[in-house]
Amino acid sequence: MNDVAREAGVALKTVSRFVNGERNIDPVLAGRIGAAIGTLGYRRNLAAASLRPGRSSRTIGLIISDLANPYYSTIARAIELLAREHGFLLTTASSDEEGDRHDALVDRLLGQQVEGLIVVPPRQAGRAWSQVPGPVPPVVFLDRPGDLAGADTILADNAGGARAATVELLAQGARSVAFVGDSRAISTMAERYRGYADALAEHGLAPDPALVSAAAHSKDQAAAVVAELMASGAADAVFAANNRASLGAVLAFRESGRRLPLIGFDDFEAAALLTPAVSVVSQDVTEMGRLAAELVLDRLSGAPARSDRLQILPTRLILRGSERVGHAAGGDR
Amino acid sequence: MNDVAREAGVALKTVSRFVNGERNIDPVLAGRIGAAIGTLGYRRNLAAASLRPGRSSRTIGLIISDLANPYYSTIARAIELLAREHGFLLTTASSDEEGDRHDALVDRLLGQQVEGLIVVPPRQAGRAWSQVPGPVPPVVFLDRPGDLAGADTILADNAGGARAATVELLAQGARSVAFVGDSRAISTMAERYRGYADALAEHGLAPDPALVSAAAHSKDQAAAVVAELMASGAADAVFAANNRASLGAVLAFRESGRRLPLIGFDDFEAAALLTPAVSVVSQDVTEMGRLAAELVLDRLSGAPARSDRLQILPTRLILRGSERVGHAAGGDR
Repeated sequence: MNDVAREAGVALKTVSRFVNGERNIDPVLAGRIGAAIGTLGYRRNLAAASLRPGRSSRTIGLIISDLANPYYSTIARAIELLAREHGFLLTTASSDEEGDRHDALVDRLLGQQVEGLIVVPPRQAGRAWSQVPGPVPPVVFLDRPGDLAGADTILADNAGGARAATVELLAQGARSVAFVGDSRAISTMAERYRGYADALAEHGLAPDPALVSAAAHSKDQAAAVVAELMASGAADAVFAANNRASLGAVLAFRESGRRLPLIGFDDFEAAALLTPAVSVVSQDVTEMGRLAAELVLDRLSGAPARSDRLQILPTRLILRGSERVGHAAGGDR
Repeated sequence: MNDVAREAGVALKTVSRFVNGERNIDPVLAGRIGAAIGTLGYRRNLAAASLRPGRSSRTIGLIISDLANPYYSTIARAIELLAREHGFLLTTASSDEEGDRHDALVDRLLGQQVEGLIVVPPRQAGRAWSQVPGPVPPVVFLDRPGDLAGADTILADNAGGARAATVELLAQGARSVAFVGDSRAISTMAERYRGYADALAEHGLAPDPALVSAAAHSKDQAAAVVAELMASGAADAVFAANNRASLGAVLAFRESGRRLPLIGFDDFEAAALLTPAVSVVSQDVTEMGRLAAELVLDRLSGAPARSDRLQILPTRLILRGSERVGHAAGGDR
C-alpha cells in the first residue's frame, strides 16, 4: 500500500480508505490509485480488496439460458430453496445462449461479489474461463460442461435417455425415426443425437439427414419441421429432443388431425393431460438444481472437494401412450 | 481503449463509459479498468475519469410467491430483460406466500443494497412497510397491492376478467357455475370472486357456498374439488380462478371421462393444445413485468413520479372451445 500511495501521489490513509471501499474519496484520487495499483501489478490485491473483508455477499449467482423456460425456472427454484436454508440469496440471469452476454454476466456477478456461481454454458461459446480476470469463486457447471479446470459439473445422461426413447420407438415398429431438435453446438443436443444414432445403429440403421433437424429452437419452429415431415411421409415416428420440440410436435399433430408415435426429451407440466398423453425422457431437474447448490455450499463451507467432480444423473423413460401407433391426435371435436 | 478493455476483461463500452466519467459503473469494474490503464500506461483522460469508491449495487430485488410457477417466472424474465438494458441485475426470491419469509427477504435484499424492489405481497400479511427499518429504495407492488405509501402499484383487472368469464359461462346456459380457487386472503382471488359474484348478480343469481372452493392451492387439490363437484352433480360449469385450478379441472375431466364447460384465469402454454382447448382470461404478464421494471428504473433515474400511482391493466377473454357444452373430455383413446 505504501508503494501505491507513492506511485499515486496520495496519502497512505487515502489508499487504505479506497481499499476498504469507503465512499468519501475524491474520484480523481481514486482513479489515480486504481492506475497505480495497475502499474504496480497489484491487480490481484485490488480484486481481493474489493471483496470487502468482514463483509460477504451471501449471494450465489446463477446463469441460465432463459428464465421463462420452465426447465430453467424449476432449476432456479431448487437452487433457491437450498441456498435459502443456508442464508444465501440467488441472483439469476439469462444468457439467451449468447457467449458475449454470458461473459458480461460473469463479470457483473463477480463484480457483485457472488460467493459461488452456477452456470449453464451458452450454446455460443464465449471467452475461455482461463481469461476471466481476478479471483473466481467456486463454480458448478450445470446441464452442460464448461472449461474451468477443477469446477464441479452436473449433467443428465442425455445420450442414455435419447437412446432409450429411440429404442422404444423402434420396438413399436418405427423404421424412420425423426430427430427434431436444436443445434448440436449445444452439448446436451449433441449427446441426445449420439444416443439416437446409437439406438439406430443397434438396429442396423443409420441416421438419415432428411430426418434430422437442428432448427427447432422454438415450439413454432418445431411444429413447422414436424408438419413437413408428415407432409412428405418421410418419418414414421418422432423423437423430440427437448420440451419445446415436444410441444411443437403436438401442435403439428393437432393442426393436421393426424399424428406419429412421439417421445420427447424433458417432462413438462401438461404432458400427462394431452391427448394422447406425451411419453417423455424425464430428467430429475429439481435434483440437479439441489445438487448444484449443495456443491457450491460445500465448497464455501470449506468441505474438501468430492473426488467425483463430474456427476451424470440418470434419466427415466415415462411411457404415457404417445409412443404407440394408431391413436388419434387430440382435436377439438 | 481496446487494449484496456481486453486487459480489464470488460466490454469496450464499459471502458468508454468509464473514460467519459459516467457515474453508473460498477466500482469493481472501474477498479479493474483503472488497474488496466495503469498496467498499460494509458493515462489519457484519467484525471477526468470517475472511479467512484463506495458502491452502488446496480441490482433490483424481486420477491414473488414461487419462481417455479410459470406465471412468476414469466414476470421475472420480463423484468430481467428491461433491467439488463439498463445495466441492472435481478435478485429473485420466493416468499412461498408466507409473511415471515417475505419480511426476512425484504431485510436481506435491503442489506444487499438493492436499488429498487418489485414485490408481490404474500397471502399471509407480514409486518407493515412502515415498520421496515432504514431507508427503503423505490418499491413497486406487482399483481397485488401493498401498504407502502407512495409506492407504485401494477394490478390486472381481476374482477373484470372473472366477470367476463362467468358471463360467458352463463351465456352458454350454465346456471350453477362453480368457483374453484385459492384463499380470498389473496387480493387477486378476492377480486376474482367479486367479479364472479357480480356476474351472477346480473343474472339474478347468488353465489352458492356449495359451489365455491377456496382450497384449490395446487393442481391436485383443484382436481379433487372438481371431481367432487362432478360426482355430486352440483355444478354445471367451472370457473377455475388460476392456472393451477385450470390444470386440476382438466385432470379431473380426464380421469372421469366426462367434463363441464370450463374457463380458467391466466393463460398457460399448453392451454391451446389440450382437448378441448382451454378458454382463459389472459393477463399480459410480460407487460406487467416490463412496466414494473420501467417504474423502478424511472425512479432511479430521477424522473418525477407519474401521477397515476396505481395502474390496472385490462385482461382478455380468449375462447378456445372448453367453455362450450357437449365436447368430450380428452382421453387416451
